[in-house]
Amino acid sequence: MTRLDLAALAEQVSLPDEAARTAALARLDRLAKPTGALGRLEELAVWLAGVQGGCPTRPIERPRVVVFAGDHGVARRGVSAYPPEVTAQMVRTFLDGGAAVNVLARAAGASVRVLDLAVDADTSDLPAAVTAHKVRRGSGDIAVEPALSLDEAEQALRVGLAVADEEVDSGADLLVPGDMGIGNTTPAATLTALLTNADLASVVGRGTGVDDAAWMVKCAAVRDAARRGRPLRADPVALLAEVGGADLAAMTGFLLQAAVRRTPVLLDGVVSGAAALVAHRVAYRAKEWWLAGHRSTEPAHTAALERLQLTPVVDFGLRLGEGTGALVALPVLRAAAALLAEMATFDEAGVSDRA
Amino acid sequence: MTRLDLAALAEQVSLPDEAARTAALARLDRLAKPTGALGRLEELAVWLAGVQGGCPTRPIERPRVVVFAGDHGVARRGVSAYPPEVTAQMVRTFLDGGAAVNVLARAAGASVRVLDLAVDADTSDLPAAVTAHKVRRGSGDIAVEPALSLDEAEQALRVGLAVADEEVDSGADLLVPGDMGIGNTTPAATLTALLTNADLASVVGRGTGVDDAAWMVKCAAVRDAARRGRPLRADPVALLAEVGGADLAAMTGFLLQAAVRRTPVLLDGVVSGAAALVAHRVAYRAKEWWLAGHRSTEPAHTAALERLQLTPVVDFGLRLGEGTGALVALPVLRAAAALLAEMATFDEAGVSDRA
Repeated sequence: MTRLDLAALAEQVSLPDEAARTAALARLDRLAKPTGALGRLEELAVWLAGVQGGCPTRPIERPRVVVFAGDHGVARRGVSAYPPEVTAQMVRTFLDGGAAVNVLARAAGASVRVLDLAVDADTSDLPAAVTAHKVRRGSGDIAVEPALSLDEAEQALRVGLAVADEEVDSGADLLVPGDMGIGNTTPAATLTALLTNADLASVVGRGTGVDDAAWMVKCAAVRDAARRGRPLRADPVALLAEVGGADLAAMTGFLLQAAVRRTPVLLDGVVSGAAALVAHRVAYRAKEWWLAGHRSTEPAHTAALERLQLTPVVDFGLRLGEGTGALVALPVLRAAAALLAEMATFDEAGVSDRA
Repeated sequence: MTRLDLAALAEQVSLPDEAARTAALARLDRLAKPTGALGRLEELAVWLAGVQGGCPTRPIERPRVVVFAGDHGVARRGVSAYPPEVTAQMVRTFLDGGAAVNVLARAAGASVRVLDLAVDADTSDLPAAVTAHKVRRGSGDIAVEPALSLDEAEQALRVGLAVADEEVDSGADLLVPGDMGIGNTTPAATLTALLTNADLASVVGRGTGVDDAAWMVKCAAVRDAARRGRPLRADPVALLAEVGGADLAAMTGFLLQAAVRRTPVLLDGVVSGAAALVAHRVAYRAKEWWLAGHRSTEPAHTAALERLQLTPVVDFGLRLGEGTGALVALPVLRAAAALLAEMATFDEAGVSDRA
């Protein structure tokens, strides 16, 4: 396989449209409301104008969630409150429409695509659209072994790039990376610790809700993985191979290619935050295309948001993943867009501006 | 006019349905997600089950904003960054659909009703539905005189009671109190200071964005009004007459009658917070029917929320009023309701629960 040229990929990431941002700022000051009175909604409207490349903003019509599902060998150590077979069961629940991500996507007018990157189960009965990109059955146990070979990591990254292209080509105008994988907060915490220089124990959270004993097992796994990952911090593919996983690698590619394609992304929680940190390492401009939907209760997520200098839209104490936190934020972004596009100006409304 | 029997009104306020709340809590723990993983959304779902009186929750189908518009004589002192005639101009903008509240209501699937309680303009050309409840042209300048006579205060309170009844009878299943009135944060701050025992200067905010000189004028107005209002704290009608206004009195009645009618309310910012404090003084159980939509930047709002022990859904730095902060929170409440109603349980999904 030809090695992926990440430097060339980074070169393709441009910046959002500064003229559109400037126009949005100017328009906000002409709308019939006190200057700045819409607070954070004004910032969101300006961001959206920049990434859409126009002012006023267009409605977000085809938001798309892509759930990257994968198992992690480390889950067999008991780092999660749930058994590993839940990953495959939840993939089926996504396809049946009964999971939280499905409910929130329906409520927000988004659609959901599920990809099996590394589910450790026989999923051959699932639609090819779900399984066509499967890299392997379960990523390795990062406590003791690499998650993936270098070739597998690159294969997964390419899946993410290709999927982002497919989605943008199919008309998606906002992308949401979702995650599903029992044990996936362990590699996410490891990647976050390595890329933010945070103290290891400070970024290890309770995940699905583990007790103290399991939390200590998780800390040990992160410690051992981080020891092997630390020398690889400057090599994103090697880092994802050693301490990430196929789901995280694919999500990293997805986030990068969304930026290349000038398509806005609403990030979810700690797993997409970790992938964003890796993608940021590849292309520092990419984060201009990302909005942080929410703040998860996982401490690694806060570390990642700080490193990326992203301020989450909402903070509801969610810790579910799947894309749920991003979907709760989507109506807020839509509201901001509607205000910029539809509110009357002082002149149009015949309202007196301040003296 | 027969005096309104507030004690009898308070007696009519019952508590939300505890059995529905218990059922919601139990159902949340059976849904295919880690226990508690939906954070604040779980609390919102439980609240909604209680106020709707059933589990699972029903979709919120007819949310209704009622904007209580009124001028305040104190505005002529320059306590606002905008001239008083903006109130009447904004009432017309609401009717044209170009204001922030209209945009957000459309985005959230809510409808908007505008009531002129005390706009200081000739509004006789407006539809009777808007003006039929007008109490007077402008409430008094609370820095030096009562806002209303006792009869006017009671009249306005009765308008609020009647309007809540009308809306519930027309099928509204969630009510949002909106406000419009240049200068209205001055009576709101006064009422809040008196009913929370907060230090006066600590609750006087920048409103629409006043400079230091205007802020000092506003502080002096609040100080002078509070001196007259303080002895009246145990008499809600007298208090609203002395330092409130027709808009605030009507909103107080609206909030009380919504509770009597067992109808959920999504509170907005500092003006509805002040009315809520007065209504809370009348009937302490009423607040169980109210959810705080957002936290305004006005310091009086934070004082009111603390006194009422209400935790706002979002905190976006809004300071616009009109009902906008509540409307931004509405999709979040809807998302919570959808999760409770539509997510599959562990059993239904065939997903393994924690060991």
